[in-house]
Amino acid sequence: MKIPEKILFFIIDGISDRPVYGKTPLQDAKTPNLDELASRGILGIMDTIAPGIRPGSDTAHLALLGYNPYDIYTGRGPFEAAGVGIDVKAGDVAFRCNFATLDDGKVMDRRAGRIRETKELARSIMEDVKLNCEFIFKESTGHRAALVLRGRGLSADVSSNDPKKENEPIKEINPVKSEAKKTAKILNDFVKQANDILNKHPTNVERIELKKPPANTILLRGAGMVPDIETFEKKYGLKAAVIAAAGLVIGIGKMCGITHIGVDGVTGGVDSNVGIKINKAIEALNDYDFVLVNIKGGDEAGHDGDFEKKRDFVSKIDESFSDILDLKDTMIVVTADHSTPVSVKDHSADPVPIMIIGDGIRRDDIRAYDEISAAKGGLNRLMGKDLMPILMDLINRTKKFGA
Amino acid sequence: MKIPEKILFFIIDGISDRPVYGKTPLQDAKTPNLDELASRGILGIMDTIAPGIRPGSDTAHLALLGYNPYDIYTGRGPFEAAGVGIDVKAGDVAFRCNFATLDDGKVMDRRAGRIRETKELARSIMEDVKLNCEFIFKESTGHRAALVLRGRGLSADVSSNDPKKENEPIKEINPVKSEAKKTAKILNDFVKQANDILNKHPTNVERIELKKPPANTILLRGAGMVPDIETFEKKYGLKAAVIAAAGLVIGIGKMCGITHIGVDGVTGGVDSNVGIKINKAIEALNDYDFVLVNIKGGDEAGHDGDFEKKRDFVSKIDESFSDILDLKDTMIVVTADHSTPVSVKDHSADPVPIMIIGDGIRRDDIRAYDEISAAKGGLNRLMGKDLMPILMDLINRTKKFGA
Repeated sequence: MKIPEKILFFIIDGISDRPVYGKTPLQDAKTPNLDELASRGILGIMDTIAPGIRPGSDTAHLALLGYNPYDIYTGRGPFEAAGVGIDVKAGDVAFRCNFATLDDGKVMDRRAGRIRETKELARSIMEDVKLNCEFIFKESTGHRAALVLRGRGLSADVSSNDPKKENEPIKEINPVKSEAKKTAKILNDFVKQANDILNKHPTNVERIELKKPPANTILLRGAGMVPDIETFEKKYGLKAAVIAAAGLVIGIGKMCGITHIGVDGVTGGVDSNVGIKINKAIEALNDYDFVLVNIKGGDEAGHDGDFEKKRDFVSKIDESFSDILDLKDTMIVVTADHSTPVSVKDHSADPVPIMIIGDGIRRDDIRAYDEISAAKGGLNRLMGKDLMPILMDLINRTKKFGA
Repeated sequence: MKIPEKILFFIIDGISDRPVYGKTPLQDAKTPNLDELASRGILGIMDTIAPGIRPGSDTAHLALLGYNPYDIYTGRGPFEAAGVGIDVKAGDVAFRCNFATLDDGKVMDRRAGRIRETKELARSIMEDVKLNCEFIFKESTGHRAALVLRGRGLSADVSSNDPKKENEPIKEINPVKSEAKKTAKILNDFVKQANDILNKHPTNVERIELKKPPANTILLRGAGMVPDIETFEKKYGLKAAVIAAAGLVIGIGKMCGITHIGVDGVTGGVDSNVGIKINKAIEALNDYDFVLVNIKGGDEAGHDGDFEKKRDFVSKIDESFSDILDLKDTMIVVTADHSTPVSVKDHSADPVPIMIIGDGIRRDDIRAYDEISAAKGGLNRLMGKDLMPILMDLINRTKKFGA
C-alpha cells in the first residue's frame, strides 16, 4: 500500500449550517458521492479558528493553511490587494476601496450605482495623483478597488473615511495611534486629489448625463499592514496551487506564495461551474503537491438566508464530486472555512464538518458528510491550526520530535 | 465504594497503528482481557504531544508524565545517560555514544561489528582521558555508551562527529552557537584521546587478530543539557516506580526521580516476558502509589513493518492482562506513547487509544481497546499533557481552583 503524496483540499465556503425544520442543507441535499467519500474516510468536526470564534473567510483560510491569523492578520486590505493582482510586499499598508458617489460632502451611494467601468478611473488616479510615498491603486470587480501605500514610516492604525451609511458626510481619516499621523495625512491627500480627478473624468461626465451616480470619491477600509509570511512551499515543502473565484482567497494564496490557477466559467456564486473547477484541480495534481479548491456558492446562499438555494447547491457540488472517486495516490480533504447558517445570514462559529480520505489512513463507520454525522467520527473535534500538521503526518512529511 | 488511591499505568509502546487490509493490529488481535477492561472503563483517543506532532518515545513519555517536552527536552543524550545509570545533574551536557570502527579517518562500521565487550574499553577511557572539565563515560548495551560533561560554561549546541553513513570521514565537532566553542574543543579533545587509548587497547588488539572490526573511536550524538526537573513525587505527591526494558524509559524515570524496578526476562522485544512484568508491577503497588509499566515489543514490530508480529504480540500481552482483572483499589490506565504504523515503519502522529478503569469513575459503552472504537469513547480526544491532571482528579488528589 502506497502512502499518498499529494493533497486535494476542498474548502466548500460557508457550507456548514444549523438545522432548519430539523435538517441542515448538507443533511437535506442529495449527496451520494460525498457519502461514498465519507464511507471511505475518517470524519470529525473542526473549529477553524477556535471554539466560539466566528471566523472570516480570510482568517479561516489562513488558519486552515497553518498560519496563525492572530499573528499575521491585521486587516482585509492586504489580502484584497493581493487578490486583485497587486504585488504586495511586507510592510506595505493596504486598503479595500469602494468607488462611491459624493454630493456636497455626503456619501450618497457607497457603491456609485454598482459601477462596472472603473478601469479608466483607476488609471487616471494612478497617473495623476502625487503622494508623499509610493502607491498602487487598482480596480477590482464592480465598484471595488484596492490601494497600497509603500514607504518608510507608514502605519495601518488609521480610521476609515467610510461613514458606513448613505446620506452621511464622508469622514476625515484620522490616526488611531500617534505613529500613524503621516499615513493619515497621505490618505486624506489621496482622497482629495482622487476626488478632483474623478469629478472631471469623462467616465463620470458621461454617467451624470445618463443620470447615473458618478464614481467621484474613494472610500477606504480594511486597513492592514502586509505581513511577512513564510511561503507555503518553504513551510511544508509542498508545491501548491489554488483554484478559486473569490479574490480574497486568491489573495491569501498569493501572499502565501501559492500559485493561482484560473478557470473559465467560475463565478463564486451558485451558478458557478463546479465540475470544471474539480477537473482543473485533478489536472493540477500532475504539477502540484497540494491543490486547494475553494467552492463559494454555498456561502452566498447562507448570507441570503435561502435554505433551498444552499441545499440545491450542495446537490450540484455532489454531482461534480463523482470525478474524484477514482483518484489515486492522493489524499482528499473536504471541509468548510466556517458555517454560514441560513438562519443567521452571516458566518457563525459552529464547527464545520471535515473528512479525510486516503489509502492506508484510519477509517470510521460514518457514512455521510454533514455536521451531525461528522461529530461522531474518528477525528472527534479538531482545531483548524492542527489540520496541516495532521495532513503532513498522514503523507509522511513530518519530522519526529524526540527519538 | 472506595475511590482508588493507586495508579497502574501501562504504556504499550508504539502499539497504536493504521489499518492494513481494513484492520489495525489492535483490531485484529485476540484480546478478551483488554476488551473486558474496555467494557469496565472509559475510552478516548489522545495526541500525546499535540495533533499532527510525531512523537519520539522520550518526548511522549515526558508529556504523559505531565512534563512539557518543549521546555525540558533538548536532546536524547541526557535521558540515555540517566538510563545507563549515570547520576546526571541539571546543567550537565550529555551524549549518546557509539563505539565505532575508524580506518584512515573514515568510519568503516558505525557499530564496531555490534561489539558487546565494551566494559574494559569504557573503564580505560574513564581512567586515562584528561579533559578541561569533569566527565563520566559509561558503556551501555551492545555498541552503545553515554558521555556526560560537567562543569561551568558548557553548552549542548554542538554538532555531531557522526557522519551517519559508513565509509565517510568522521566529522569534527563544531559549535553551533558561539558559546559552545569551549565544549566543542573539549569534545574533539575527548575523541582524540579516546582514539589513542582504544587503538592500543588489548580488547581491540584481540579483535583485530580475530578479524573483527576494532572499537577504536567514539561517535557522539543526541547532545542535550540535563534539565532541572521537579521530581514526580514532589509534583504529584505520589511515590512512583517504573518497570521497563528500554534504557531510554528507565532514564526518563530516573530524571523524574522515579525508581526503576528491574525484572528478569524482559528484553524490550516481542519475546519479552510480559507476564512477569505485570506481576512485578502488581507487587510494586504495595510499596508505590504510581507504577508505570512500559511494554516495548509492539514498537519494534511496527518499525519492522511486520503486521502479524505486532498483532500476535498484542494477543500475547492480552493474556498477561488477565492478572490485573481482579486488582482492587487501583486505577488502571492503558495507552501508548505514539503510533508506529506497520505501513510507515516509524512513529506517526495518529492519536493513540487510551482507557481508564477504576471504581466509581464514568464508563462508556465501548467494548474494545483499539484506535477506532476508542475514538467513540467518553473521553473524546485528549492531549497527553492533560492526562496526569485527569488521573490526579480521579484519585481525588487535585486542589480546587476557586471556591
